[in-house]
Amino acid sequence: MGRESGHVRWIICRFVVLAAIFLTGFIIGWFGHPSPVNSTAETPDRLDQFLLQIQAQNIRQYLRDFSRLPHLAGTVQNLRLAERIRDDWAEFGLDGVEIVSYDVLLSYPNQSRPNYISILDTHRQEIFNTSLSEPVPEGYENISDIVPPYNAFSAQGQPEGELVYVNYGRTEDFLQLERDMGINCSGKIAIARYGKIFRGNKVKNAMLAGVAGLILFSDPADYVAPGVAVYPQGWNLPGGGAQRGNVLNLNGAGDPLTPGYPAKEYTYRFDPEEGVGLPKIPVHPIGYDDAVHLLKNMGGADPPSGWKGALNVSYRIGPGFTGHAHNQSVRLNVYSTNQVTRIYDVIGKIQGAEEPDRYVILGGHRDAWVFGGIDPLSGAATVHEIARSAGTLLKTGWRPRRTMLFASWDAEEFGLLGSTEWAEENAKILQERAVAYINADSAIEGMYTLRVDCTPSLHTLVYDITKKVSSPEDGEESLSLYDSWHKRDNWTSERNAPRINKLGSGSDFEAYFIRLGIAAGRARYTKNRVTERYSSYPLYHSVYETFELVDVWYDPSFRRLEAVARVRAGLVFRLADSRLLPLDCDEYALALQKYSKVIRDLAYTHPDAISLYHVSFDPLFSAVQNFTKAARDFHQRLNTLDTSNDLKMRMVNDQLMYLERAFVDPLGLPGRPFYRHVIFAPSSHNKYAGESFPGIYDALFGIEHAADAPLAWREVKRQISIATFTVQAAAMTLTPPA
Amino acid sequence: MGRESGHVRWIICRFVVLAAIFLTGFIIGWFGHPSPVNSTAETPDRLDQFLLQIQAQNIRQYLRDFSRLPHLAGTVQNLRLAERIRDDWAEFGLDGVEIVSYDVLLSYPNQSRPNYISILDTHRQEIFNTSLSEPVPEGYENISDIVPPYNAFSAQGQPEGELVYVNYGRTEDFLQLERDMGINCSGKIAIARYGKIFRGNKVKNAMLAGVAGLILFSDPADYVAPGVAVYPQGWNLPGGGAQRGNVLNLNGAGDPLTPGYPAKEYTYRFDPEEGVGLPKIPVHPIGYDDAVHLLKNMGGADPPSGWKGALNVSYRIGPGFTGHAHNQSVRLNVYSTNQVTRIYDVIGKIQGAEEPDRYVILGGHRDAWVFGGIDPLSGAATVHEIARSAGTLLKTGWRPRRTMLFASWDAEEFGLLGSTEWAEENAKILQERAVAYINADSAIEGMYTLRVDCTPSLHTLVYDITKKVSSPEDGEESLSLYDSWHKRDNWTSERNAPRINKLGSGSDFEAYFIRLGIAAGRARYTKNRVTERYSSYPLYHSVYETFELVDVWYDPSFRRLEAVARVRAGLVFRLADSRLLPLDCDEYALALQKYSKVIRDLAYTHPDAISLYHVSFDPLFSAVQNFTKAARDFHQRLNTLDTSNDLKMRMVNDQLMYLERAFVDPLGLPGRPFYRHVIFAPSSHNKYAGESFPGIYDALFGIEHAADAPLAWREVKRQISIATFTVQAAAMTLTPPA
Repeated sequence: MGRESGHVRWIICRFVVLAAIFLTGFIIGWFGHPSPVNSTAETPDRLDQFLLQIQAQNIRQYLRDFSRLPHLAGTVQNLRLAERIRDDWAEFGLDGVEIVSYDVLLSYPNQSRPNYISILDTHRQEIFNTSLSEPVPEGYENISDIVPPYNAFSAQGQPEGELVYVNYGRTEDFLQLERDMGINCSGKIAIARYGKIFRGNKVKNAMLAGVAGLILFSDPADYVAPGVAVYPQGWNLPGGGAQRGNVLNLNGAGDPLTPGYPAKEYTYRFDPEEGVGLPKIPVHPIGYDDAVHLLKNMGGADPPSGWKGALNVSYRIGPGFTGHAHNQSVRLNVYSTNQVTRIYDVIGKIQGAEEPDRYVILGGHRDAWVFGGIDPLSGAATVHEIARSAGTLLKTGWRPRRTMLFASWDAEEFGLLGSTEWAEENAKILQERAVAYINADSAIEGMYTLRVDCTPSLHTLVYDITKKVSSPEDGEESLSLYDSWHKRDNWTSERNAPRINKLGSGSDFEAYFIRLGIAAGRARYTKNRVTERYSSYPLYHSVYETFELVDVWYDPSFRRLEAVARVRAGLVFRLADSRLLPLDCDEYALALQKYSKVIRDLAYTHPDAISLYHVSFDPLFSAVQNFTKAARDFHQRLNTLDTSNDLKMRMVNDQLMYLERAFVDPLGLPGRPFYRHVIFAPSSHNKYAGESFPGIYDALFGIEHAADAPLAWREVKRQISIATFTVQAAAMTLTPPA
Repeated sequence: MGRESGHVRWIICRFVVLAAIFLTGFIIGWFGHPSPVNSTAETPDRLDQFLLQIQAQNIRQYLRDFSRLPHLAGTVQNLRLAERIRDDWAEFGLDGVEIVSYDVLLSYPNQSRPNYISILDTHRQEIFNTSLSEPVPEGYENISDIVPPYNAFSAQGQPEGELVYVNYGRTEDFLQLERDMGINCSGKIAIARYGKIFRGNKVKNAMLAGVAGLILFSDPADYVAPGVAVYPQGWNLPGGGAQRGNVLNLNGAGDPLTPGYPAKEYTYRFDPEEGVGLPKIPVHPIGYDDAVHLLKNMGGADPPSGWKGALNVSYRIGPGFTGHAHNQSVRLNVYSTNQVTRIYDVIGKIQGAEEPDRYVILGGHRDAWVFGGIDPLSGAATVHEIARSAGTLLKTGWRPRRTMLFASWDAEEFGLLGSTEWAEENAKILQERAVAYINADSAIEGMYTLRVDCTPSLHTLVYDITKKVSSPEDGEESLSLYDSWHKRDNWTSERNAPRINKLGSGSDFEAYFIRLGIAAGRARYTKNRVTERYSSYPLYHSVYETFELVDVWYDPSFRRLEAVARVRAGLVFRLADSRLLPLDCDEYALALQKYSKVIRDLAYTHPDAISLYHVSFDPLFSAVQNFTKAARDFHQRLNTLDTSNDLKMRMVNDQLMYLERAFVDPLGLPGRPFYRHVIFAPSSHNKYAGESFPGIYDALFGIEHAADAPLAWREVKRQISIATFTVQAAAMTLTPPA
């Protein structure tokens, strides 16, 4: 090797050294410079950890603990449970837990004068009285403070009169009675079976018909599953069991005395008689053993088809009794009182690392009519386990991008009061900061498959999460919950995916979704909707909703509750921790397309009027088309989004977060200022319960029943106009902001 | 020098070279790495440039151009001006300019049947008729389409009857007539002088009194400044001049036929007779030359003290005439029609560099009753010059942090229609994204000093900006506008700073501030509020509001308009470009402290009732105290804020932006769904016009006039409760978000 090559080597050597020095400088410079993205980027493995932490045996234990005693809202037991939950959440490691109280109107039976129903002889002597309580299930004999069956917020009174059977007490039932059968219900005592619609609406319909008092009973046709024994030998309703429940017509107002404002010490209260949604007539619930005594001697016309239940009686309509009983009458004896009472929500918090001012809420109620084995504590136990799992992850150094809030609501059974009052107190902050609300009421109502009700923008996330959760069913160890659910409940022939339902009403999401326009959803295990036609689940709101009901009958392994808990947890986790919010506006577009066609088709069942009054759905369709395009364009822009830019991410996320808000009309639906969601509020009429575009449905309902057709069609046009504007405005929120 | 030193030099040399190489690497690494803060940090020099670009001579030229022709809303001339403004703004360099149209209810005189007022003799022959138009000012003789004086939205009709003089037509005036003087106005023709309150409220009061028709006249006591000649020899109102103006009672509803929704093609419209705020009686305005003829023969009682104007007549009350005229009566002849008419807003945009989804809006109207020399074109000319200045800066590479929107509203004179419809169409987006709204109506109404009306959170910014603008007054070349203003209008003995007023109502900020809760303000040049007691400015809404009125009398150098333009521009610039929003929540706290004491003191003028009905202001004071502490803590946290963190800045700015929203009650004030600002909506009663906490004031007004005291005091308590809740909720928005 000569000098030349040595020199070359020397040069190369020198070059390498210099390059190394340069590189060292470069590296120090590069990495010494603060990084633009201080993200906790999405952590799918953390999601897995979070879900796997959630364990059936813990849920079982929480349900066992929570359901030993009755937890009626307003009682000291329920305050004690609030304190326990607060203490547990703090111990789990949540950043902060507080109890928040409100003073709301509740309703209780009078402790010294029980409620009951009598049959009176011609001397107005009581010859039959309904039972004052349900037989207490084994093991609970020594529990005091079991509230007997009653309908909360019933008016006080002892009305008496002839009995009329009104089937389910729906609008169409009263129409059939009054119009087709010529029966005037005014001044009568009506007896209606539970089921099909919310009991408060039965009371409203009865009041409109002039009824003096209303008896609600559980018919075996609606509350007994074929081939299943009654509790405790099975999960069916015994003849001595009855369904408690409030009979308000609140339409989302919350506390009847403080509509629109939180029920705090300083808050002005209406006089009790001015309260929102309070019935003016006595109402009382009974079981089917007692119902037989009232129904068996009824006279009058034979029942129309579909009015017969499963009791061994004629189901004749009345009014009044026949045969030896023809002079007997019926009296309600209701002594319940309404009382302003303190209730307690528990609110737990995990502060977000990057965006503490964005909230993902997991909330469910804690108050129960009695033991709450299913309603609500099967849900509360899942919330508890999710909070524990989150706390465990926190201890490993993880922290969600956004703030997670956990809520244990009080007084849901009295009209969603705890959740609504908190929403009222925090309305501004929630409107500005809440990303989503996941509801956690009862986690199980059947043994068949998953049931999800949610806003369309959550569809995709629900599918994603259920693919990460295992099926809880025996023999399906290798299937995901998604697949298990899909094979049991495919959506439609057009859409090959598990069915997802619209979010209705009647649980604590109402104030968040229908009033404030926060994206919301709920998940639970359910029955087979095709083959199991009974209402709800048979023991709903009875004393027999115990821990054992779940432990022995519904979910002995607690794997169904575990699966539901994991779905709820996964939704909350991804909403709180994904850098890009997992909300899908394309799904909202699909839903709007579908709903607008359905309402158009319904309206076109009046083709002459459509033409006579120049009713057009074209603007609405055009708005839906604009929305669809805006959603598609929005999605496409996501592909080129600079995801490392915090501000740009925040802007896009804000558009996604505020999409649901866009469907809220601040003026509310006609006569219902707190039902403001133009797409998903419930219709005023049970006929259209569950339909979207409630304003248009209500207007069309008006047409069928209005004396003044031109005026009614004007209202239809007005509602189409409002829907058009709302969808159009929602489309605008998805376009580039400037 | 030996080998040693040479070697040392060689080592040093080598070290320097290596260090240089390292440094090169480091520098490339450092600067090659993307920067974490891509801020256009605050640029005070840019603000100076922005303000200095704004030049008197340009404003003069724009005013000259804009005011050559009448620009009544709904006319083709006003559309042409919209197109010119659109084209100019585009040429100035704005990122986008569009014209947006709405179809709203306007009101015009009937072209073939003029409106006038007659005196009738006993045979109902017209023996005197008021003039059909104002004498046209010199130089404008050939202009067609000058709309004669009329009251827009007057009902049609020809009511006749005895004349009653009702002073200003205020509530207290009618009370004095009816209660103290025993005069029944029912079926009479009332004549009221303009001034003190909005003319629409005079009409409302007259309707409540049962009046059949109302005449409005400009009394020299209210529209002639002492020692000043009438136009064109001075700026006073000639006897033949009259004040146009609408007589609606909209309470912020916008288009009377589409309240709550934008007046688009698809929008449902009420029938004309259902329209919001339309008067049911004919109303017509006249000048003082005509008024003399109506007033001079009036009989009846002598006027109460304070009812005498400055005409050489007795101002007797009537009803009816006296002497030879005692059998004469008066007839209104009003043939105006309401018509759905297309109007046009111009919307210009400068896209924000960092936060395009945050909007700062500068808006003012373009439509004028006739030439609009002051109202609104002195304002529109400033907006035009500000847009030009912004465009000039854009061309130098500057771009504001947030999006700036420029608006030229139509049909303000017909009830703030253009601004309200646009706010309705964009309500969701504005609620979520609007930082502030600066109004730009008439820029001058006097020659004395600056006048600013704004939300408390803008106080500090107003002071900052006015310190950067020079005084326009001769001989004050070295003074800032702040100092010039301060020496002319010190706030109070307690607060040594220029007076800033509450933001009232009656211009285009209403929908933004009072309905949507967007921080808002306005600035203009004004008269001496102590010595110049006439209403508004004498030529207000007359044909004499010309370019020359400003050019010859109000601001020959156009330096006052320039100063006003710079204040408006400075507010917009800083709101759009400051990294931290220049909104001051401590000032809001001070204001709330002040207002709550004032309302408490007023309530305590009824000490017995306060005690009897257990009325307490303690909760409100406690809420104000909480707010004060939250604001102070918020301010303190700003000191330790990591201002380089984009997300943290955004969070704090969101809290500042949403503060004003917190004072909006979605349920609205009682009976006024579109007046929703709990602190700053106008009171329903002229007695309390301009007071804060309008709900409480209205309730207290009710007490003074209600038959049912317990009910009235309940309403007071309810309103205190709502105010308490609102202030409390506002305090919560300022606490740390999690």
